[in-house]
Amino acid sequence: MNYRLVAKMLSRITFLIAVTMVFSLPWAFPALSGSSSSDFERRGLLALFSSIGVSCLVGALLWMQGRDAKGQMFRKEVMAIVGLSWVLATFLGALPFAISGTSLKKELPGSAYTPAMGDPTSEAADSQQKMYRKRPMTPADCLFEAQSGFSTTGATVLNELEDPAYVPRCILFWRSSTHFLGGLGIIVLFVAVLGQGSAGKQLMRSEMPGPSKEGSQARMQHTAWVFTAIYCGLNVLLTLLLKLLGLSWFDSLCHAFGTLATGGFSTYNNSIGAFASLPHVGPTNAAWAEFFIILFMIMAGTNFTLLYFLLLRKPGKLLEDVEWRSYMWIIGGVTALVVLFGYFHGDEYFYFQGDPLRSLLSGLRQGMFQVVSILTTTGYGSAADFDQWNSFGRGVLFLLMFVGGCAGSTGGGLKVIRHILFLKILGLELEKSYHPSVVRPLRLGGQPVEEQDLRKNILLYFGLILVIFVFSWMFLVTVEPDSTWVRGGTGPASVEHKLIDSASGIAATLNNIGPGLGTVGAKQNYAHFQWYSKILFTFLMMVGRLEVFPILVLVLPGFWRAR
Amino acid sequence: MNYRLVAKMLSRITFLIAVTMVFSLPWAFPALSGSSSSDFERRGLLALFSSIGVSCLVGALLWMQGRDAKGQMFRKEVMAIVGLSWVLATFLGALPFAISGTSLKKELPGSAYTPAMGDPTSEAADSQQKMYRKRPMTPADCLFEAQSGFSTTGATVLNELEDPAYVPRCILFWRSSTHFLGGLGIIVLFVAVLGQGSAGKQLMRSEMPGPSKEGSQARMQHTAWVFTAIYCGLNVLLTLLLKLLGLSWFDSLCHAFGTLATGGFSTYNNSIGAFASLPHVGPTNAAWAEFFIILFMIMAGTNFTLLYFLLLRKPGKLLEDVEWRSYMWIIGGVTALVVLFGYFHGDEYFYFQGDPLRSLLSGLRQGMFQVVSILTTTGYGSAADFDQWNSFGRGVLFLLMFVGGCAGSTGGGLKVIRHILFLKILGLELEKSYHPSVVRPLRLGGQPVEEQDLRKNILLYFGLILVIFVFSWMFLVTVEPDSTWVRGGTGPASVEHKLIDSASGIAATLNNIGPGLGTVGAKQNYAHFQWYSKILFTFLMMVGRLEVFPILVLVLPGFWRAR
Repeated sequence: MNYRLVAKMLSRITFLIAVTMVFSLPWAFPALSGSSSSDFERRGLLALFSSIGVSCLVGALLWMQGRDAKGQMFRKEVMAIVGLSWVLATFLGALPFAISGTSLKKELPGSAYTPAMGDPTSEAADSQQKMYRKRPMTPADCLFEAQSGFSTTGATVLNELEDPAYVPRCILFWRSSTHFLGGLGIIVLFVAVLGQGSAGKQLMRSEMPGPSKEGSQARMQHTAWVFTAIYCGLNVLLTLLLKLLGLSWFDSLCHAFGTLATGGFSTYNNSIGAFASLPHVGPTNAAWAEFFIILFMIMAGTNFTLLYFLLLRKPGKLLEDVEWRSYMWIIGGVTALVVLFGYFHGDEYFYFQGDPLRSLLSGLRQGMFQVVSILTTTGYGSAADFDQWNSFGRGVLFLLMFVGGCAGSTGGGLKVIRHILFLKILGLELEKSYHPSVVRPLRLGGQPVEEQDLRKNILLYFGLILVIFVFSWMFLVTVEPDSTWVRGGTGPASVEHKLIDSASGIAATLNNIGPGLGTVGAKQNYAHFQWYSKILFTFLMMVGRLEVFPILVLVLPGFWRAR
Repeated sequence: MNYRLVAKMLSRITFLIAVTMVFSLPWAFPALSGSSSSDFERRGLLALFSSIGVSCLVGALLWMQGRDAKGQMFRKEVMAIVGLSWVLATFLGALPFAISGTSLKKELPGSAYTPAMGDPTSEAADSQQKMYRKRPMTPADCLFEAQSGFSTTGATVLNELEDPAYVPRCILFWRSSTHFLGGLGIIVLFVAVLGQGSAGKQLMRSEMPGPSKEGSQARMQHTAWVFTAIYCGLNVLLTLLLKLLGLSWFDSLCHAFGTLATGGFSTYNNSIGAFASLPHVGPTNAAWAEFFIILFMIMAGTNFTLLYFLLLRKPGKLLEDVEWRSYMWIIGGVTALVVLFGYFHGDEYFYFQGDPLRSLLSGLRQGMFQVVSILTTTGYGSAADFDQWNSFGRGVLFLLMFVGGCAGSTGGGLKVIRHILFLKILGLELEKSYHPSVVRPLRLGGQPVEEQDLRKNILLYFGLILVIFVFSWMFLVTVEPDSTWVRGGTGPASVEHKLIDSASGIAATLNNIGPGLGTVGAKQNYAHFQWYSKILFTFLMMVGRLEVFPILVLVLPGFWRAR
């Protein structure tokens, strides 16, 4: 292992993080962030300054180590850089949370399940009885939150985002900035590394237009810059749209970051569902905001090469792309089914009352928002809490978590293309079982896409995800005490759902979605889990984001031994 | 496709089924079966006679078709024979149930959830209030029950086995006979077909001792006879042991059939748990019976080649076999964990009260019985209903369903050897991701086992099982109405468990176990499912039993087209 080379590359990442932190500083001024508290956020600012200092120090140390790095970069070094940069980012990104004393709301013991004085079923009456205290984030909380940001997962341990006494505005902006940085990182990484691995050229779309007659290195750099430009451009566009609809600059930026990175961090406890009750927005503008966010989530889950073709006024390339067409069919088909089942099941948001057209539109809006939010692995919540849906809706969303966006997008999950290839490979191998002599090539949109070991690699990827999922699930069920479900707040019987809740929590972090079912549902969070489970989730978010290999090899002793 | 050859082989299977049916006839006499009713079972006998007639007729028709069959048997014909013989057996095996009017207990509408007069929580008071009627088995019920027998699954739709007015004794004996036949079929098939496929020689143990200096055909025949002899011998031995412990001949035979085939059909509603309350058995003998059944289940889940070595007084071969050792480690390890978790969780059967040693032994007994019953895919229930266990216990048993017994045994599931190879392959491929040039062979117990396409084939098998599991799960969640859970009898809130119950039902049929969790739990059954779901379960039992390929290709149009 060429450690100097690794250190050199890591120092660049560290400086990039330090620079990004600078942009969170201005929001410490309440005039800018529109904070409800008029106090200047001294602790938040101090935390950011010291984090920038620590990052620069770490960067400088790494730079010194890697100053005179020589030699070529092999596969091993590339993997180490990718994996370690994500680990390093997690630790540095966690600093602002830790130093600022960012806190979450903790119910005082004894106040839960106290029968309210008046109507015991009334939630309002009940919540008045509950007593809360501020609990500063633990180290595991900080690492979880930072990793959730960088991996564009959007799972959170923070349950009170709207009160600056709990989370300073500048820290909240830093939280959303990690999404921006993570999304940018992943599309650049895709060009440089991931597109070369596993399913190889099929994921990469070899026909990406580049500066012709140049080497693959220059071509790759061109692609990386194009992707970065598209990503930043879409962020700016959505920010402006949301600002026009009445959101503050602070909220517009944070939600644009969360959308285009397919992250899902919001600045409101009720996520996107809170927009309608904001004074400057109102229900109509909120509906438009939801619509734009759906549109931009779909774009964020689209292969950026295809978005580039769209910019070049070649929409044909988009429409004839097998992966993108499947992706759109999944969105359309599942939305239709979810609305249909919700209607027949009498679920709140799908049961058409009064004006049929209006009700249908409302059902479609809620259904599509959730389907797109989960499929693209964003994880934003709207007014319709999908955890209250019928079993079909909950089951299908659970499966969608494993589908994810298109390759070459900021979306997580296994990616649509892998599922297409997986099913095609199974079909071809089934045929081979009774026709061993007939060799048929794997085709995608009519083109043969065979490549050495492609079949084995696709099957391998599903196998790895399966094993990681199963072992993590068993670990969580084994070590996480039942009391977590009692503290989780969905009622004393919720521990009966431990198996399915745990499975959804693993799926939601491994595939970088964020919310799952039950105690990790859209209206819940990950705060009440034990620290070791939070570390597991943090690990899974990294594993999922970097497509398994670069993180998993870091824990293999053989990887670190001399070549 | 050489249809004549297929017909010829199928006619043999048909006659074998007809012959087996003859052995159920004597049990129509109450003096022999020890039936609680003293009436001669006229309807049952008539049903068996007409089923034998139909089978002979079908056999004769097939024999005439295949009389002058010529030509060689290719892979395609072998797969067609294996798949179709299972389908044919299902239809013929269902006839006795259908013609005899075998019935199940159906709660009269309105009688459920009626508050009892006395203590509303007392189950006894509640059941007195309930009214039942006889409901004859539907065609889907009969197919399900027959397939469950032949595939040695042991899932049932019958909920009143002890009353001959519902299920005649001779039909109950036929039900257990299907296990015997299915178990025999699968070990012979393994020698002839399955051992040659998928993971090939690794599953087969090439070092099976045979008549030397002869061709592979003779060797195969020798192996098939040895396996048949071991299988029948073990059945006789367990029957005698159970008879000595006080069970009737009828019960001894039926439970031996259920054990050695890793089936799980019992003649009591409470499965093995009923033994302790039988007048001629008593608690002590029941404990011994449980112990012997555990022992014979373990043997039934062991590769029969290894049992042959044991007969040849070469236990070393058994002890050094990697698959068998892993299999025993799983049994020991999971039992220890289940008992430990049950103890700390305060589960009824694991919470040590009074005499610590006695309690520990009782906990071990209940824990090991369930672990072995699920791992070997038998599915017998004991006094400890594992559906009442804590989440860890339920989760780990759910995973064990996918492990199964050893290759070359009557056990179902994916087989231990496939899991060993799967994990080893993932490890090697992970190493390959950073050392692409290093080629390391796959080893098993120190021996290289590489074989063309082995890696891809193992990954493929897991992929197929995953896809079948996921699609079946979604189908069941989608089409099975929520009311099934209300009728299922585990309470009105049980529909909340639809997702996990459905998953466990799919796993329990696909892996040939029988009982799952919740509404298909050990004390429940499959009677209340819709007919189309029962057909799905029937299909899954076949798919799992024949290791996917021979059944799945039957539904591919390409398979039937001319070569």
